[in-house]
Amino acid sequence: MQAPPHGHVAVLKTDVTCEGVHFEKGEKPEWVGRKAVARVLSDFAATGARPAGVLIAVTLEGRPTAARIAYIRRAYAGLGALLRQYGVALAGGETSRGGGLGFTVSGYGWGRRAALRSRTGARAGDWIFVTGSLGTSIRGRHLRFEPRLAEGRWLAAGGWCRAMMDLSDGLGKDLPRLAQSSGISYAVDPDALPCNKGAAVEQAVNDGEDYELLFTVPASKATALLKAWPFALRLSCIGRMLPQKSPPQTGGLVFRGYDHAS
Amino acid sequence: MQAPPHGHVAVLKTDVTCEGVHFEKGEKPEWVGRKAVARVLSDFAATGARPAGVLIAVTLEGRPTAARIAYIRRAYAGLGALLRQYGVALAGGETSRGGGLGFTVSGYGWGRRAALRSRTGARAGDWIFVTGSLGTSIRGRHLRFEPRLAEGRWLAAGGWCRAMMDLSDGLGKDLPRLAQSSGISYAVDPDALPCNKGAAVEQAVNDGEDYELLFTVPASKATALLKAWPFALRLSCIGRMLPQKSPPQTGGLVFRGYDHAS
Repeated sequence: MQAPPHGHVAVLKTDVTCEGVHFEKGEKPEWVGRKAVARVLSDFAATGARPAGVLIAVTLEGRPTAARIAYIRRAYAGLGALLRQYGVALAGGETSRGGGLGFTVSGYGWGRRAALRSRTGARAGDWIFVTGSLGTSIRGRHLRFEPRLAEGRWLAAGGWCRAMMDLSDGLGKDLPRLAQSSGISYAVDPDALPCNKGAAVEQAVNDGEDYELLFTVPASKATALLKAWPFALRLSCIGRMLPQKSPPQTGGLVFRGYDHAS
Repeated sequence: MQAPPHGHVAVLKTDVTCEGVHFEKGEKPEWVGRKAVARVLSDFAATGARPAGVLIAVTLEGRPTAARIAYIRRAYAGLGALLRQYGVALAGGETSRGGGLGFTVSGYGWGRRAALRSRTGARAGDWIFVTGSLGTSIRGRHLRFEPRLAEGRWLAAGGWCRAMMDLSDGLGKDLPRLAQSSGISYAVDPDALPCNKGAAVEQAVNDGEDYELLFTVPASKATALLKAWPFALRLSCIGRMLPQKSPPQTGGLVFRGYDHAS
């Protein structure tokens, strides 16, 4: 693989996508493969880094039968299309017998160190933003989401956001994580939450699998950001970061999120 | 992560290590974690690249109970010690529920393009070499092997070898792969095979899990290599690469190897 351009650092991300956890048996293999890669591209989006290549490690339960090989081929067709769409190389892969059907995708890419973001770095007083709309993604959008690569790079490279992450487990789990990583607290206005059609505000907070960007912006830049935002994608200000000692404020909403590990 | 030094390209490798396939339930978690990382470092050794960092993706069957968390902690202790030994960074990781206990390790590193090797590039007339000794590794060495990083880099950077790979599935499966990738054939002298203590020559060929280096050297350099070899590790010339149309010659040995996928 090509080395990062001069002045850039390498960025590495890995994500597991397993049957029975991240997708169900009946789902189309093309969408399953696509999701496995899209999850990692979404990780890159949230850092502001540019993904250059991925490695795919597939585990199969039992022997590689003709049906299983056909499934993997179709999954590769789906993930290959997504990689082409975003100009990311398939740098290698392997298939191994394992405990169940799963895809571990590892991504490699780069960014300028000063233009990379993480969950740390948010400050009290920052405004909290999310892209897109949230909730009920499990009805199908969790397989078809677009990783917000252009948006993430624009936000990070332009110095708009201080902390950023992607919403995989739901705002109700991921915002507390961002706050904890940054050592501060938060207040969310339930009325400001962008809900998907048919999604209640509780679902927008706790369903998970939205893969939208969650980020914080210095108060001095928040209005300018709303004016400068060049994307068709919806952008919503949903609250403020609070000092460490403030209890989280959620307007009565239960912040729980979705736990992939349980 | 640090970008590759000027003039180098990035090298990416991924490997899956699953319970019931690459290790058994009763084995010490420290050794299991160590093996998961050592397999990837061995991939780097076989290219002549320098590994810089790894990502660890762990899958667990079912909920993360206290016992399972303790297991993962011990596995990380084992793999962490190996990473420190070879100066490789732990660049990140995640734990997810999945179909069974498994570790997918993704490595990132670099090398000068001209000093990287793969299974392709062997030519008819090349001498075939292996490092170390082969066979019966499943009795325990498969958990404790040393990735041949120094040896691999020396061989590739010095221009000694044309094609190189590591022996994970046994010479009986891996040498035919190397020959096929290079578009040629091979002849092996059974009497020249370096066998581990207590290993029959059939075991040296087909047991697998040796993680030694297999490589081919131009005939004009083979004797000089044996003189120049600066390592304590055993080095054996075991045969010659043949033209494409020659049938493989194995002195009557059945070349089968070990298939991790079946």
